[in-house]
Amino acid sequence: MRRPQVVRDPSLPERVTVYEVGPRDGLQNEAAVVPLEVKVELVRRLVAAGPPLVEATSLVHPRWVPQLADAAELVARLSADGLLPGGTPLPVLVPNERGLERALDAGCTHVAVFLSATATFARRNLNRGLDEQYALVEPVMSRAAAAGLDVRAYLSMCFGDPWEGDVAVGQVVDAGRRLLAMGASQLSLGDTIGVATVGQVTELLRAFAATGTGPEALAMHFHDTYGQALANTAAAMRAGITTFDASAGGLGGCPYAHSATGNLATEDLVWMLDGLGVQTGVDLGALVATSRWLETQLGRPSPSRVVRALDD
Amino acid sequence: MRRPQVVRDPSLPERVTVYEVGPRDGLQNEAAVVPLEVKVELVRRLVAAGPPLVEATSLVHPRWVPQLADAAELVARLSADGLLPGGTPLPVLVPNERGLERALDAGCTHVAVFLSATATFARRNLNRGLDEQYALVEPVMSRAAAAGLDVRAYLSMCFGDPWEGDVAVGQVVDAGRRLLAMGASQLSLGDTIGVATVGQVTELLRAFAATGTGPEALAMHFHDTYGQALANTAAAMRAGITTFDASAGGLGGCPYAHSATGNLATEDLVWMLDGLGVQTGVDLGALVATSRWLETQLGRPSPSRVVRALDD
Repeated sequence: MRRPQVVRDPSLPERVTVYEVGPRDGLQNEAAVVPLEVKVELVRRLVAAGPPLVEATSLVHPRWVPQLADAAELVARLSADGLLPGGTPLPVLVPNERGLERALDAGCTHVAVFLSATATFARRNLNRGLDEQYALVEPVMSRAAAAGLDVRAYLSMCFGDPWEGDVAVGQVVDAGRRLLAMGASQLSLGDTIGVATVGQVTELLRAFAATGTGPEALAMHFHDTYGQALANTAAAMRAGITTFDASAGGLGGCPYAHSATGNLATEDLVWMLDGLGVQTGVDLGALVATSRWLETQLGRPSPSRVVRALDD
Repeated sequence: MRRPQVVRDPSLPERVTVYEVGPRDGLQNEAAVVPLEVKVELVRRLVAAGPPLVEATSLVHPRWVPQLADAAELVARLSADGLLPGGTPLPVLVPNERGLERALDAGCTHVAVFLSATATFARRNLNRGLDEQYALVEPVMSRAAAAGLDVRAYLSMCFGDPWEGDVAVGQVVDAGRRLLAMGASQLSLGDTIGVATVGQVTELLRAFAATGTGPEALAMHFHDTYGQALANTAAAMRAGITTFDASAGGLGGCPYAHSATGNLATEDLVWMLDGLGVQTGVDLGALVATSRWLETQLGRPSPSRVVRALDD
């Protein structure tokens, strides 16, 4: 298998954390429901490929997202199989206290909450006002912390909103700082519809830095809908960010943008990082093999450029 | 139509030249022969979309590339239609003196020659040794210069070769400097198989700068086969490069990489540049409309992320 030529850029970090979101953020956007056994196998294969975290699922109420209706069953299975808790943390999204209880029952060590930087998406996705969101997640975050869990906070629509258009930097910084003050160990800044360009990324990270929020508290969650995800990743690395969310095979089209392309493909990210000599611990070959296997399960090709280019 | 939010990055240039290569580098990799009328219309629409240069075709011998067998007819038609020479230069590739004569007959003001940075590709693509290439293009370049034409030189496989693997930076710099010394007005550095990552780009441009070759003499020609083209573009802009080759709709899969994706899509490039407030003179809407029209002519979807994302 072809590998990139390695040339370090000394202005970039030596090591980066690849936070794999395929089983959760990727699968939740798949229309056809994926069997539980395939989900278990996907998590198992991804863990073996080496990323330091693999987000396993979202413990939403079974009614809301049919694809995730088996989430409680999935975490129970991962627990029974010794993967949860295992060597690789498998964070799960917990939208409410009921979800948190299920996560605790299964032995989860890492959970995540999900909020919107914009009012329209908060209303459409969470059925809450912009401020009401915090009241929803506050008890979840405090109970999780009390139980010794690591709590990550996702903030979506940080760079543009399909209904509101531009999003003010100050609005994102205020929301993010509030979540960090509430105890989030890390804030994942989402370009949910993939519209951001390099200058926006640099501007937002400068604004966070100006309020004393350093890059170690932040992760970037780029979607590749407009092809900008890797350019934005390089810009964020230049600003000191060392955690990047990505989805194996680029799994997960975005339902809010008319495109087959959603999350940044982990393979495309790892190709760039391998080429830069940035350590990730991820085995690109194992990852590509996993995405090829998943293609046969989903019955459609991966939108990852690297997976397709290496397909010989 | 959605447009990116504009945030300048003061470390990047204020203006960039988008060098459109779709009708030549894009079409030449299309298996099914495109009718002459479609080619004429493509050039016409691209000129109207505003890029400062549109490479029209390659005047190769009709036997070698069936897709370009009508190249002489095409330039004659563009000339008869008043597009050549017109307000927008339409460079044509001239592989030999016979091609140059045809270009002169049609009133071309800009021509281009094509060489390889690696011996294997020189042999396979041009049937010449690495050094023999120069003997082939030297009379073309000197006659073109004597006739007052602008001569661009393409150098392919600058960042990796499908047969040789890694390519030494010194080899690329030597070849490039030789072409500039021979009178090329600009050197287009090609990542023909799309494998380069950010550090490689920075390293090569530093090596050119160290020999006194400034960024104004260089253009970057990235392929998006591994999804790296825009990250590499941003890195090259940081190094001062202000000319970027791209292909409308991402036209042109690379026959030397097993992927549907070849040239960087002009729309994906312009989305980034528009978002950065970098002036290009290109009308993104007109460009997307052209690629949509071309999709219907070619009978397959554009691989451009932006064209697909805006398809609503």
